[in-house]
Parts: sequence; structure tokens; C-alpha cells
Amino acid sequence: MTGGAGLAYGAMATLGLAPATAGVPVRFQAPAAGDLIGKAPGSTSVVILGGGPSGLVSAYELGKAGYDVTLLEARTRPGGRVYSVRAGATETEIGGETQTCTFSEGHFYNLGATRIPQSHITLDYCRELGVEVQPFGNQNSNTVVHYTGNTATSNQSIQYRAAKADTYGYVSELLHKATSMGALDTELTPEDKEKLSSFLRDFGDLSSDGRYLGSSRRGYEGGPAAGPGAGLNFGTETKPFGMSDVIQGGIGRAFSFEFGFDQAMQMMTPVGGMDRIMYAFRDRLGDKIRFGAEVTSMKNVPDGVTVEYEQDGTRHTITADYCICTVPPNLVGRFENNLPSDVLLALQGAVPASAGKLGIEYSRRWWETEDRIYGGASNTDMDIAQIMFPYDHFHSDRGVVVAYYNTGRRQQAFESLTHRQRLAKALAEGSLIHGERYTQDVTSSFSGSWRRIKYSEGAWMSWKGAGDSHGGAATPEYEKLLEPVDRIYFAGDHLSNAIAWIHGALSSGRDTVTKLHERVATAA
Amino acid sequence: MTGGAGLAYGAMATLGLAPATAGVPVRFQAPAAGDLIGKAPGSTSVVILGGGPSGLVSAYELGKAGYDVTLLEARTRPGGRVYSVRAGATETEIGGETQTCTFSEGHFYNLGATRIPQSHITLDYCRELGVEVQPFGNQNSNTVVHYTGNTATSNQSIQYRAAKADTYGYVSELLHKATSMGALDTELTPEDKEKLSSFLRDFGDLSSDGRYLGSSRRGYEGGPAAGPGAGLNFGTETKPFGMSDVIQGGIGRAFSFEFGFDQAMQMMTPVGGMDRIMYAFRDRLGDKIRFGAEVTSMKNVPDGVTVEYEQDGTRHTITADYCICTVPPNLVGRFENNLPSDVLLALQGAVPASAGKLGIEYSRRWWETEDRIYGGASNTDMDIAQIMFPYDHFHSDRGVVVAYYNTGRRQQAFESLTHRQRLAKALAEGSLIHGERYTQDVTSSFSGSWRRIKYSEGAWMSWKGAGDSHGGAATPEYEKLLEPVDRIYFAGDHLSNAIAWIHGALSSGRDTVTKLHERVATAA
Repeated sequence: MTGGAGLAYGAMATLGLAPATAGVPVRFQAPAAGDLIGKAPGSTSVVILGGGPSGLVSAYELGKAGYDVTLLEARTRPGGRVYSVRAGATETEIGGETQTCTFSEGHFYNLGATRIPQSHITLDYCRELGVEVQPFGNQNSNTVVHYTGNTATSNQSIQYRAAKADTYGYVSELLHKATSMGALDTELTPEDKEKLSSFLRDFGDLSSDGRYLGSSRRGYEGGPAAGPGAGLNFGTETKPFGMSDVIQGGIGRAFSFEFGFDQAMQMMTPVGGMDRIMYAFRDRLGDKIRFGAEVTSMKNVPDGVTVEYEQDGTRHTITADYCICTVPPNLVGRFENNLPSDVLLALQGAVPASAGKLGIEYSRRWWETEDRIYGGASNTDMDIAQIMFPYDHFHSDRGVVVAYYNTGRRQQAFESLTHRQRLAKALAEGSLIHGERYTQDVTSSFSGSWRRIKYSEGAWMSWKGAGDSHGGAATPEYEKLLEPVDRIYFAGDHLSNAIAWIHGALSSGRDTVTKLHERVATAA
Repeated sequence: MTGGAGLAYGAMATLGLAPATAGVPVRFQAPAAGDLIGKAPGSTSVVILGGGPSGLVSAYELGKAGYDVTLLEARTRPGGRVYSVRAGATETEIGGETQTCTFSEGHFYNLGATRIPQSHITLDYCRELGVEVQPFGNQNSNTVVHYTGNTATSNQSIQYRAAKADTYGYVSELLHKATSMGALDTELTPEDKEKLSSFLRDFGDLSSDGRYLGSSRRGYEGGPAAGPGAGLNFGTETKPFGMSDVIQGGIGRAFSFEFGFDQAMQMMTPVGGMDRIMYAFRDRLGDKIRFGAEVTSMKNVPDGVTVEYEQDGTRHTITADYCICTVPPNLVGRFENNLPSDVLLALQGAVPASAGKLGIEYSRRWWETEDRIYGGASNTDMDIAQIMFPYDHFHSDRGVVVAYYNTGRRQQAFESLTHRQRLAKALAEGSLIHGERYTQDVTSSFSGSWRRIKYSEGAWMSWKGAGDSHGGAATPEYEKLLEPVDRIYFAGDHLSNAIAWIHGALSSGRDTVTKLHERVATAA
């Protein structure tokens, strides 16, 4: 039927997926734009399990295309691992205690996703849904690196600006020297050498004879507010570390973070918390979402899917033409189900990762007034891994610092602790980096370890055989779950190559509803 | 008198200038804090010439200390070169035409100062005055470099992320190779070499054998929104340029900008335009400021200073105990005055610099929707020098792009043109960088060349004998003007080592009122 094909094409255009003509730049098409579309054929019904970004976008896009959509979410909030913790938030960790957040009004931190790269479709949904965005500081020359060890640069806090100036300076000096002595003459023409030397003198702030002797880039004696002022105040540049100390101390080990495809500035984030996107979806979906609906069974039946769930102590059954299951793969097997054994095995190919954060509210923004830090993170090899400073409420009388955001082994050093123990460890390590005041003026705190948070039990998935990377490899299990099981589809960031990013979840949801809609349109 | 000394110390404490004990970290003291201070002795009066940041802060701080302050400002607005151009702004350039800005409500660009480093006291005044601040994007991996020439990388737009990945990649490869072949064995121990190699593989994203073969950091085929997505979409990494092409094209020539002491991220700026700080001062000063007051004469007289000015066509005379002259040094000699000839000569040691900007309002934010650029600047060797993208109004239906911000020779290529000619040249060069759409959807524009703007006639000052640097050298003329001429003091960013920064102007004003207050207190 041409109508059906038209619908399929229409949906692809809606999703911005209509193919571009090669070589011709295509004007951006927001997710919502397009020449939509009437009703889905025969009021096709879809039940969606899970109200994280992949579930929400699936419901939202199918709803636009006229489907009869029901979304079941076990929690009483949307977003899943997109979770901004603010006053009133309550979590009871699995096998753990209950915490309730008591931050001051307006203050929060994002326990899950916190930043958006410019390329991600997440920003397009912010635009479409009217969610205001702002810059997220992923890089700051005034935050510090602090690494343990026995070198001259160990066990001290070194501003990024100083660590960078010294590292770039010595790298430039060494390459300048090697070039000058002819060591690279098989690689470089005389003209290359001249241009490269000129670049290195600028890049490393070298003297005219190619030596790194320090740089104003490091900063000035007298602390982070010091520097050239009026009159005869020229400032006194700080002294560089020695070359070997810089190399041995590895003070540049974290620099490449900010070069990453998905971490390079400018990063963005919604004003008021990442969950603002999720609540915007919720507002559009209205009563299509059933909150507090804990799924217990998901089964393909003839010509449909039957899902059972409990809500307010009552058992419900819903039958729909199709199902999209966005529940984390480590939890799906717990449903009563009739999935084939190879699918159940494939679900086990996804291994939940450990990650968590602890937010501390201070009644004094010492990082601004004393350290002149406006956002960004300090980096360490201690278990806390990093300390992230707030990207908003500048110059307020209080603020929430993320005292750790760590993964793997370093998160595991926290996840079995009580909250009080986590806080104590975070304060102990953090005060080695930012001083005694790190332990002072603390008004409240809240922590979460995703392996221990109900309905998630993992921060994200890594695929067996693909290591702990955030995707990139198509293992057999991964490929298996990209295909529907009769009328059940799987979606989520774990089925993308942007694992742990909202972009991955949204993209997977969009791909899934496109496939589903093509099938419906073709069958109609 | 102890009272006087107490006052002097009190004023210094007010200004946060009380000396810190060496080695002991001192808690931040905001400009306003302190144990102030009664009236200035005998209701000392001070007339301040010029309502830019140095004049405003002088009036503000003296007012807090009980002085009888009058500030004369020739313009009808505060701020001087701190000037946010928005609808209604009108300028008649010297020897030029009149422009009136017609940007849409809420949209603007800063014709002068636009960004604040974290270390600058400007931020402390934002805090004290309640001026909300936000991040300013000084760095963006999605903006481009575009340099003319005849190399393989010339005359094309290359994303910063790609230019960086290739440059850092080849620099790392070359140094890795030189190290491996033993060329630097006199500089590096075997352990240094091992650690350095490990660093370089990470820093340059090198293969295990130390070669740069491209990197996901460059981005993906398909444009700025492309990248890994759902299912089997792994993205296709773009291909690197060749080593010699990268070196010969000099695509890394602008990288060091972002390492600068006063340009490194995170940069900040007031919400709604830099002039918000100036209006906040105005609000505090109230009728102490006389706007539209054009000074014609400034003279030391016995026991005071007499200043004549015209306001609304009427001649006025004001006599005060002291005068602080913040008028640009190139304009002071035009007043009727009785300054000694060596002072008049010293004023000529300050040479006005050329700088200017042109803002274009577009009715479509193509830089976001197509190029995924959220703030930051593209860099070029063409006359426009750079294109700065707006740091606010994200996802709005319109926005103001700064189509050039250039200095010296490159600004001079614009300053003698009519606005229409400037716009045409800016669009011609800009469209070579960002394509034909750069010339489309233009709704209005406004330009300013500071050499041609009345009451400034210069973007900032460079000191004869100190080159075109932004300070750092104390020439005899500079030192001369740091001293008062009888009861006339000079202040301004030109008398600081942070020339062209608001910080320099505020610091100079603060130093000046401190000196003045010490004198008054001692004399009392």
C-alpha cells in the first residue's frame, strides 16, 4: 500500500532519518519537523516498558505518528538513570539504607547523565521540547590534578593551567631539540622543520632558543586570584617544575579527556538539571505513562504481547500489538517471560558497570571565592577519581559539589559502604586535594551507587567480548538483541554505540520505533 | 593621627588590600567587606572624570568611605568601552555615518569587553553588585580554523577538534620516534623515556607502535551531527591530513590562545551583556553621576581642582578637593589644563590601538542546527580574524554573531569603510569559512571601530617603548602618570598591567582611591 510506505517514509522524515543526498549539505531537521502523517494503521497499540530516555522517546515519537501508546514505569519519576537529585529525593539502596536529600531549594546534582556534547541528538530534543540549555564546564584551568606517588610533583595539588604549561612546554622543548639536532630529518623537510619549530615555540611558550623556562600561563605567585594588576604590580610568575619531575609525576595523564569526541568543549546541559528533559517528555506524554507500574511478566502471545504489572498493590494486565522493552538487560530475565533461550543468553552478554556519585552541599562557595573555580573538575588517582564543581548558582551563598564520580574498582571502594562512611572517605580524600575547608561548612549530602539502585542495578552495560568500552563492537549477543523477538523489541543505550549517553538511548529508541513503524506500514 | 591611619587601613581592608601573612591562605574578602569607616575627614570632595569601570569603581569605593563624590560622564550611558550594543544603541563615528541598532529584544553583542577570566576582580564586583554571571565559551571543538595559502590544508574550514587531533597526533608521533631512536638520551633517563612514551600515546592517540593514524577525536564522516549511534551505526571516523600538510598549513597556529593566563577556560561573562556591571554601579551611585557632561577644562587650583563641563548646552564649573581623571590619555591634552609639560608629554606615551567588531543578527541559528556550534569562535588569517558565536539565547529563533573582532592592521582594513562596506567585506570573508548561508537570513547589523568612537578614540593603549603588548613594562611615561599632579590623579586600564581588561581599569581605580585616601587620612 502506498499509504503505508508513505507513512513509513513520513516517520523517517519525522525522525530526521530521511537520507541526505551525498555531498549536499542538508539543512538541519529537528526531530519534530516533517510532513506528518495520519493515524497509524488500525490504531496499532504499543506497550513500552521503562520510562528512561529510550522509552520516553519511543512513546513520544510513536504518539506523534498516531499509535496507541502505553508506557509502564516502575518508579514514580521519569528518566531512569537520568536523575537529578534535589530536596525530597529518596532512595533505598539494595541491601542498604534509605537516604532522603535535603539540599536547599534549587540546588541539585545529576546522579546519572550530566553533560551533552554538541553533536548529540539530545540537544535537538531540548530544542523541540523547549528545555533551556546552558554551558557545562568540562574543562577548567583553575581546577587541579593531584596524584599520589613519590615524585617531586606527587601528593600536591597542581592547577591544570600549571600542569599544562609545564607538560606542553617540555614536550615542545624536547621535540624542538630533536628537530634541531637533525634526529627527524628523514621525517621532515627543512621547511617542515622551520615551521614546526615556530609552532612549538608558540605552543610551548619556549624561549627564542627553544627552551621552556616557565610561562605566565602557569599563573602567578599569591594564589588563584593573583596576577598582574594596576601600577607596578606586574605579578610574579610561578616557577615551573623540572622536566623529569613533570614526566615522572605524570601530571598530564588526564589531559586527553578534553580532546575526546564526546567530551571536548563546548559541552552543554539543561538549566536546572538533566532530568528537565525527562520531565518535558513526561509533560508531552501525559497519562500515556503509568508510574509505579512494576512489570512482572512480558510474553509474546498470538498477534500481540501481554504484559503484567503491579501498581499500588494491584495486578494489571495489558495486551498490545507490540512491546518495546527498555528495561536494563540484566533485569529482563527476571520477568516471567517466554523469550527463547538464545535471547535470554544474549541478555546476559550485557554486564552492568559500577559508577556512582556523592553530592555535598556547602554553605559557602569556597571554590569560587578562594580557588577561583567556576565549574569543571579536579582529577586524582585516589578512589574519588574526581571532584566536580557546580556549573550553576554562581556567586550563590551555597552550592553542591560532586565529591566523587568514579567507576569500576574505584566506585566499588564506595558502593558497599554506608552513606556516612562514603562521606567520610570522600571528605578525607578531598581534603588532601582542596584543604581542610573541604570538611567544613558541609550542610548535607547524598550518594548513589548505580549497582545498588533498584530498577537499574548498573550504571551502564559493557558487552562481554567488547571489554569495558562504551560500545563500538558488535558482539553476537548485541546483534541478537537488535532484532525483535516476534513482537517484542529491545531498546536502550546498551543497544547503541553511545553507551551511558542519553544520545545512545534516544538513538536506540528512534531506531526501534522506525523499524516497528516500517513493519506496521508494510503489513497494513 | 591614629584616626587617620585607622581610616587608611580601613579603606585598604575595604578594598581587600590588607596584606596577607606570607604562606597563610587568607579567606577571600569581597571588595565590599570590611570594618568600615566613618566619614572621610571634613567631607572631602572628589570629582571623577569618566564613567568607565575605573571611574565608576573610584566613585563607588570613595562613596562607601564617605567622600563627597561627583562623576562626570560625557556619554548618556555608563561603561565607556564596556558597551553592549542592543536595540536603540546609536553611534556616530568620527567622520562617519550614524548607525542605530535594531537587534531583536534581548539580543546584543559586546562591542568592547566581552569575557572575564576567573582570577579577575571583575567577578568579585559582579558578586558584590548582584550581577548574575554565566560561562563564556572561549573554546569550541566544533568551530573551525581557516587559513589562506597553497598547502593541502589551506583555504578550507577545519574543525578545531580535527586540527587539534592531527597536530597533537603528529607532534606526539614525532617526539615518540625521536625518543625511541635515542635522540634525546642525554635529556631523558630510560624511565623518563618510558613514561613519556606512555604519555604521548595517550596525548596523541597513537597506535601501540607510536604512530598517528587518525582518531575519533577528529569527528565522523557526515558532518558535525554525525557520530556513533544506535545498533550497527559505529560512525566512520574522518581521515587525518598528512603530517607535512598539517605542519605546512600551520593549522595549530591559534591553539595557544586558550592556554593564556587570561584566556584559559572557564571564562565568565554577565548574563545579558557586559554592561550589566556598569549599570549596577550606576544604580548604586545614583545622582552622583552626571551624564552628558562633557569636560572642557581641568585645572589644579590652590587647595583643589576646578573642572568645567558642558551639559545640555550649558557651561558648568565644579570645584573639588581632588580629581580623578579616567579619561583616555589621548584625549586629556585637549582639555584646557595647567598640567606640566612633562605630564602632557607622558600622556602622549600612550598610543591608541585599533580594534572593532561587527555584529550580525540572523533570523536562524544555522551555527547550532547545522554546525553544532554552541559559542566559541572560528579563527582565520583573513581580515575578519575571527567569527564569534553567541554565548546565550541557545535554541532561540535568532542570534547575533560577531562577524569580526580584529585589531591593528586587520581592523584598519575596516575602520575607514562605511558600515555597508564593512558588512559586505565581513560577509564575503565569513562565507568563505561558513558557506553561503553566512550571507542569508541576515536581519540587521551594527559595527564599531574604537578609534572612531567619540570619547574613546582608541580600543586601548599601548605604551611607546613597550610595544603593542597589553602591559608588563613600566616605561617612564607610564610611571610618571602613576603619580598625582598636585590634586589630580590618573586612573584607567592603561595604568595597569591588564590593559584592555575591566580588571585593569578596576584595579587602577582601586589603587588610586587607596592612595588618595591615604593622603587625605595622613593630612587630616
